[in-house]
Amino acid sequence: MIPRELRTEDRMVHPSRTPTLVAVLPPDLSRHLGDLLAAGHGADVTFQVAGETFRAHRYILAARSSVFKAQFLGAMRESNVSSQAYPIRMADMEPQVFRGLLAFLYADALPDYCSSGQEDEAAAMAQHLLVAADRYGMERLKLVCEDSLCKHIDTGSVATILALAEQHNCQGLKKACFRFMIRSSSALNDVLATDGFNIYPEASTGV
Amino acid sequence: MIPRELRTEDRMVHPSRTPTLVAVLPPDLSRHLGDLLAAGHGADVTFQVAGETFRAHRYILAARSSVFKAQFLGAMRESNVSSQAYPIRMADMEPQVFRGLLAFLYADALPDYCSSGQEDEAAAMAQHLLVAADRYGMERLKLVCEDSLCKHIDTGSVATILALAEQHNCQGLKKACFRFMIRSSSALNDVLATDGFNIYPEASTGV
Repeated sequence: MIPRELRTEDRMVHPSRTPTLVAVLPPDLSRHLGDLLAAGHGADVTFQVAGETFRAHRYILAARSSVFKAQFLGAMRESNVSSQAYPIRMADMEPQVFRGLLAFLYADALPDYCSSGQEDEAAAMAQHLLVAADRYGMERLKLVCEDSLCKHIDTGSVATILALAEQHNCQGLKKACFRFMIRSSSALNDVLATDGFNIYPEASTGV
Repeated sequence: MIPRELRTEDRMVHPSRTPTLVAVLPPDLSRHLGDLLAAGHGADVTFQVAGETFRAHRYILAARSSVFKAQFLGAMRESNVSSQAYPIRMADMEPQVFRGLLAFLYADALPDYCSSGQEDEAAAMAQHLLVAADRYGMERLKLVCEDSLCKHIDTGSVATILALAEQHNCQGLKKACFRFMIRSSSALNDVLATDGFNIYPEASTGV
């Protein structure tokens, strides 16, 4: 029998114990597809949105949105030639909303302008994008917008946001609105109950 | 001045303190593009790899690989018609390696079969994919393969892996090979120095 101190497998450096020397780059698929959208190489469909023109790739849109899939690959699809020759007109949408939608379709993230700027502008953008996401069957974008809108709920916006949540079947956002209203109402009652905010001093003192 | 207890802004529920009620789905761009590759909708280029046929989308390949970009968008590009009509023959590559390469191009991750199976099979696949990644200018895949190969370094493979690292300019992998050899050498010397492994007992005892 080989003595314990001679068993070389116990003394060899195990590769898994060697700290890694390779810094793997972060995922870059989103960036590459964002660049493809910006460059427009091989774009085969054109959209007209309130006077602005956008070029895109039908099969990427179809891969990312169930509605675009039905439009470009389903029974109602147009032929290659006609969809390249005639732009698709997008009604009821602002160009900056469609630009955000396209960015999300390609890069799985919204561009900065969608969430920056004034709070009410960011909230309005999130509402428009939520409507567009619901219209194009983009469940993840819809949830991203819902999550964003939860942070914009206040006494001035809660009614509008609740109506939007009801209309587009956003369960989480509805709950957030109700929770806000219940807490606000409770907080308001606490405030009203304080001595300093007694609007009926005669009644409260029995005078 | 309004008394402290009446300032309602201190009592209202701040939206950011409300726990989120919306579970945003994880990113799904990789999955959607993987599905597009599998379905092949709108594929406009065909590859022949050792008798197997693969269909893909030129503009996605071009967005992901500098070499495919030069091939499909550069001065040497073929016309739409010819690249659809005639398959591109891929020399010096096994079909399962090209399948892994395509999967990484579309989904930014390698399929399970590339890292599962016997350890030596996984190491061989990582080596083939590293060569392919270098050939097609895919820096992230190259680093993924380097990182994987660092875990496969052992006394039997270190020479081959070091040669590969040298040939394809993989600095981190080279360092890992040298580190392994230095440590192995040191451990081996320790083993050889033990009394039980004295191969020249006469010399060591002066007999």
